[in-house]
Amino acid sequence: MVVKENQEELTIALNRTLKEGDREGFMKLLKDLRPYDQAIQYMRIPRKLHPLFVECLDLSMLTEMLPYLKASSQVELIQSLEPEKAIPILDMMQNDDLAAMLTDLDPEEIDRLTNMMVREEAENVRRILDYPADTAGRAMTNRFVWVHENYTVGKTTEKLRYYSGYATSMNYIYVINSDKQLIGVVSYRQLLLADPDTRITDIMSRRVISVDAFTDQEDVAKQFARYDFVSVPVTNEDGTLAGIITVDDVIDIIVREANEDIEMLMASGKQIDFHTKPFTAAWKRLPWLILLLFIGLVSGSIISGFEATLEQVVALAFFMPLIAGMTGNTGTQSLAVVVRGLASDDISLKESLKLVLRELVVGIIIGLTCGFLIAVIAFIWQGSFMLGVVVGSSLILTLIIGTLAGTVIPLILSRFRFDPAVASGPLITTVNDILSLLIYFGIATAFLSKLT
Amino acid sequence: MVVKENQEELTIALNRTLKEGDREGFMKLLKDLRPYDQAIQYMRIPRKLHPLFVECLDLSMLTEMLPYLKASSQVELIQSLEPEKAIPILDMMQNDDLAAMLTDLDPEEIDRLTNMMVREEAENVRRILDYPADTAGRAMTNRFVWVHENYTVGKTTEKLRYYSGYATSMNYIYVINSDKQLIGVVSYRQLLLADPDTRITDIMSRRVISVDAFTDQEDVAKQFARYDFVSVPVTNEDGTLAGIITVDDVIDIIVREANEDIEMLMASGKQIDFHTKPFTAAWKRLPWLILLLFIGLVSGSIISGFEATLEQVVALAFFMPLIAGMTGNTGTQSLAVVVRGLASDDISLKESLKLVLRELVVGIIIGLTCGFLIAVIAFIWQGSFMLGVVVGSSLILTLIIGTLAGTVIPLILSRFRFDPAVASGPLITTVNDILSLLIYFGIATAFLSKLT
Repeated sequence: MVVKENQEELTIALNRTLKEGDREGFMKLLKDLRPYDQAIQYMRIPRKLHPLFVECLDLSMLTEMLPYLKASSQVELIQSLEPEKAIPILDMMQNDDLAAMLTDLDPEEIDRLTNMMVREEAENVRRILDYPADTAGRAMTNRFVWVHENYTVGKTTEKLRYYSGYATSMNYIYVINSDKQLIGVVSYRQLLLADPDTRITDIMSRRVISVDAFTDQEDVAKQFARYDFVSVPVTNEDGTLAGIITVDDVIDIIVREANEDIEMLMASGKQIDFHTKPFTAAWKRLPWLILLLFIGLVSGSIISGFEATLEQVVALAFFMPLIAGMTGNTGTQSLAVVVRGLASDDISLKESLKLVLRELVVGIIIGLTCGFLIAVIAFIWQGSFMLGVVVGSSLILTLIIGTLAGTVIPLILSRFRFDPAVASGPLITTVNDILSLLIYFGIATAFLSKLT
Repeated sequence: MVVKENQEELTIALNRTLKEGDREGFMKLLKDLRPYDQAIQYMRIPRKLHPLFVECLDLSMLTEMLPYLKASSQVELIQSLEPEKAIPILDMMQNDDLAAMLTDLDPEEIDRLTNMMVREEAENVRRILDYPADTAGRAMTNRFVWVHENYTVGKTTEKLRYYSGYATSMNYIYVINSDKQLIGVVSYRQLLLADPDTRITDIMSRRVISVDAFTDQEDVAKQFARYDFVSVPVTNEDGTLAGIITVDDVIDIIVREANEDIEMLMASGKQIDFHTKPFTAAWKRLPWLILLLFIGLVSGSIISGFEATLEQVVALAFFMPLIAGMTGNTGTQSLAVVVRGLASDDISLKESLKLVLRELVVGIIIGLTCGFLIAVIAFIWQGSFMLGVVVGSSLILTLIIGTLAGTVIPLILSRFRFDPAVASGPLITTVNDILSLLIYFGIATAFLSKLT
């Protein structure tokens, strides 16, 4: 790994060599870097040096670096190239990377780029783009080696040798029958240890696990995590082999899904990273904040509805942020448990009910503990026994209800096949803010004669 | 993958066969399951059937299922076995799995269990347990194949054949010199394509990337994500080969780290899942809630300090939850961006400053937008121009400060090598609650004469 501090020095050095036209010096610095680190350097140097940078790299270096750039930079780079450089790169790219690069472009631009490609490769990419977003079909590559069931070990090794520069280097070779259906799998190790004349069907394992091309990528990732796969074949409805998904792409899927969960749970705005421009970042964050502003107004109008109560006992205002804050917090605690639990576990209806019951018990324990504590504190601080009773009993109720809301809402969303993390964060804050104020001021108003 | 609904049916069927003593029926149901799914079934059936379940499995099935159980269940299972069954299982287990199982036990129990093992295996496990928690050394296994630099391809294949049942099946064979230092790597594919008489040093790649045994597991995971590794060798300070880390363990690390980030960001309590008992879950969640309760009291005492202001303009209370809530939310938005950014990117001091500047701009944009909006609403709703000015200008200030707090605090924590997710969630809520109330009531008090 190139350490961050070295990365900055490297950028400066690369800048200098490029400006001085010192190609040899530039290549000396760049050639030992991994494609990922080359991409980092490409994105760090000033834009106007990009053409020079690209000119220095040969086709295979460019092809390897490209997938590590942002999709928009990838397209920009490809479009800046002469066709005689762009075409072989498009043809050589892994087609899942290619599909990812093309996914956000408009249809005409996709056509323009794919029309330049070798027909077979173009068709492969178009086929991948036909699968819905976030399905297994979108994440698969067809750069892998498969053999027909009548192959021998020796012939298989030959085929492997022939495609050795081209195919993704994974552990397995897949075996198909005359209908192109997946019927078995052989590991490189099995090939290595077998006699060349052995028929492939004699050493292959017939218990090959595959995923359907329409499977959600999140479910594919769960299977990799559970079963310790390094790659998994993807099949169409009729059992034909469509492609493979490799573990490196699955790692990207897992990281992306975790980030999406956090974005939704914390309402922090989609895909903001260290390189996002300030206006873009503000623009992505504002919807949530404006939503929250209107939620705040609902809370405000509830409080204004109890203005008379509040005017008589101003001390009630002291405990308002505490009660609303704690209710919101116990709700998001439950929410986090449910959302992360659903990300690694499936849950049946019966288990959902069990979980709600558990959270009810948790809510009661938490409510009684915190409610009793705040009752004593309120009594000592404000010298009013009844204020202690009102604040304490409100907190018991709001904590129980807040805990349940944080559990039930995401479970219902997930039952109806919404992603439970979608909108749950702000949703639960809303619900709990409003409920806690209603309960608090409701109880206070009921006991108003005893409070004053 | 065994679908959830089928899993329940399967549990019922397994239960019945066990109770009826129908071993054959039991094995018929169980034998085609993957070890992960067997472990799920083991944890689902009643405890009293566990001994019967275990009795039915042979040693290799038990060894494969064991790592998928919870650590406590693993120890329980091992302790329930006769020594003649337990010992070979301990010896056969991957030593990283074994280390993970032993890690929470007290030293005497570790000694008792490791003393039963073959001496060499026991020493391997003890060596792994000597590395600090969450380092590469803790996640590595020594079940891999390495060869000496004077080996030929043929001799290497022989060694591979000999260890084929024992070693982790990964793509690579590592080459060491007489000092046991790692000097190269050969892929199975290279072996497959090379002549048996070729010297291994002639086909091996000398540019082998390794990680130091003391590297943080999170950094190891970053390298896998960036460089698309399936395994990486772990070396000691002197360059000797200590073990390898495989991608399946890295996936577990990534999932665990993401869960830990969410736990800390949402203050939801450590390692609560769907199977945690209610009292345990409540016990883990209460510390945060009690902390938040006292934070709420600080807010309460600030409000009580401004009691005179509040008594004169009760309408100020209507906007309290809104201002505190929005400030907290913009803070956690920034926090989420920083924490997730740090999880996949490193950041230099210069870049930190750039990020703080960007968030300042974001804060200003957000502040001006929301502040103007609420000023207009407050003016229209309460019919007081000055109230609009007070609420609006407060929100502008609190949103700018809240955004900065959410950025600066995690950056400082990470500079001083605290995990930025640790305590940041509650910390930022505290800071922002207190700051927002001080600013709001400060401004309101300053303009009090014009408000009434």
